Amino acid sequence: MNYKEMAELVKGWVEEAGDLLRESLQNTSLKVEEKTNPSDLVTEMDKSIEAFYVEKIRAHFPDHKIYGEEGTYDEINDLDGFIWVIDPIDGTLNYVKQKSNFCSMLALFKDGEGVLAFINDVIHEDVYYSVQGEGVYCNERRLEPIEEHPLKEGLLAINTKMALSEMEEAQQLIDEALGVRLIGSAGLEMVQVLMNRVSAYVTTPLQTWDIAPGYVMAQELGLTFTQRTGEPIDLMKKNAILIANPLAHKEIVKTFIN
Amino acid sequence: MNYKEMAELVKGWVEEAGDLLRESLQNTSLKVEEKTNPSDLVTEMDKSIEAFYVEKIRAHFPDHKIYGEEGTYDEINDLDGFIWVIDPIDGTLNYVKQKSNFCSMLALFKDGEGVLAFINDVIHEDVYYSVQGEGVYCNERRLEPIEEHPLKEGLLAINTKMALSEMEEAQQLIDEALGVRLIGSAGLEMVQVLMNRVSAYVTTPLQTWDIAPGYVMAQELGLTFTQRTGEPIDLMKKNAILIANPLAHKEIVKTFIN
Repeated sequence: MNYKEMAELVKGWVEEAGDLLRESLQNTSLKVEEKTNPSDLVTEMDKSIEAFYVEKIRAHFPDHKIYGEEGTYDEINDLDGFIWVIDPIDGTLNYVKQKSNFCSMLALFKDGEGVLAFINDVIHEDVYYSVQGEGVYCNERRLEPIEEHPLKEGLLAINTKMALSEMEEAQQLIDEALGVRLIGSAGLEMVQVLMNRVSAYVTTPLQTWDIAPGYVMAQELGLTFTQRTGEPIDLMKKNAILIANPLAHKEIVKTFIN
Repeated sequence: MNYKEMAELVKGWVEEAGDLLRESLQNTSLKVEEKTNPSDLVTEMDKSIEAFYVEKIRAHFPDHKIYGEEGTYDEINDLDGFIWVIDPIDGTLNYVKQKSNFCSMLALFKDGEGVLAFINDVIHEDVYYSVQGEGVYCNERRLEPIEEHPLKEGLLAINTKMALSEMEEAQQLIDEALGVRLIGSAGLEMVQVLMNRVSAYVTTPLQTWDIAPGYVMAQELGLTFTQRTGEPIDLMKKNAILIANPLAHKEIVKTFIN
């Protein structure tokens, strides 16, 4: 099976996960637990969607490793071989409180290089996916490469913790941009940059499962995706990320290295 | 014609405006002008959608007054009689940069009381509307009244200027809430509160056309909609607004009167 055939297969799983998540919102008695604090939630659906992906991956690719948000970890000491990164629901707080503005994500790496990526914007029924070297698609439509432009000609996306804890840098950037936007799902914020709806997304440290598919897709569209200090992403640890077109990227990095 | 019949008629106009706006996004050579600064934009579509509404209103209700964002003003010295408030595109910056996350809005007041209100979330094809005393609808579905809950159990929506210029109050509130959200369209932020997707929306001073339909709809769902100091809205001037369920409203007002 080549990567394109794999993408067709896996897109089916991601769409099925989206169906299950839409159905789950009809369920009025969703079980919700706090993880580390009241805004860090996990639901029975986070766990069952992860289990759904794991079962599919194990059945089709028994020799691949898996790294999942909800505790499905193979022992991963390095990036050798095939590794699947799963975020069953990205934006669980939105899933619980908004019943919208969340996504389900999967990415496949080979020897540390991203080869496949999937982000399902479940409520809007938009599935974004990419195959290495073949561009990024939203459903049937191929996304355009992003033209370079400075931050002052576009919008800036940040995460809540960025707004809370790092005000000086955030204020400088918000001031420079035409406006600030905040959805509350790293996956969907990255999609906004891929779609050229915002010019940059900058965050406090996020987990690998939060960023993996956006990281893979960014390279297909000529976007720069690094730590916000400009250093390369390290998939083995948390990363405070910056995704932007190369010109805006260069401007924003300066805020974090001065 | 009673208010319910008027609502049916006007909903047709608002839907037609939505069709025109969706079509306009296929047009690659949209003419955009700056108004007061680079993030305050007006397009040919703002003007033509306002003209479209004005023509309909003049034809059907020749004795009603009109107050429109793009310069269609009758002389309005008080709130007596029937007054239509038009915001042809709310979130013009999103319309231009995102091709999404904007809305078209209309509201009708009689002697200062809101009687009809319309918000078309154009890209998601959701039309929100209300008739005084008859509740709020999203397309065919009647929205549920909002149960009281404190800010700490929900999300907070703010506007960009709130994030920029009034950090101390904003920080307190962001800290108290589960998270912060920012779409960049007052109409769509108000919809988030009406849908109970965020618990409160608080802003710097906004124009009457930015807030009119949300103000009318809020009263139908048991939400409190005032200036953020708790004082009543004054439709004859700009208002820094706060819309929330009564309990969260009471908490948030304290931030602005201390």
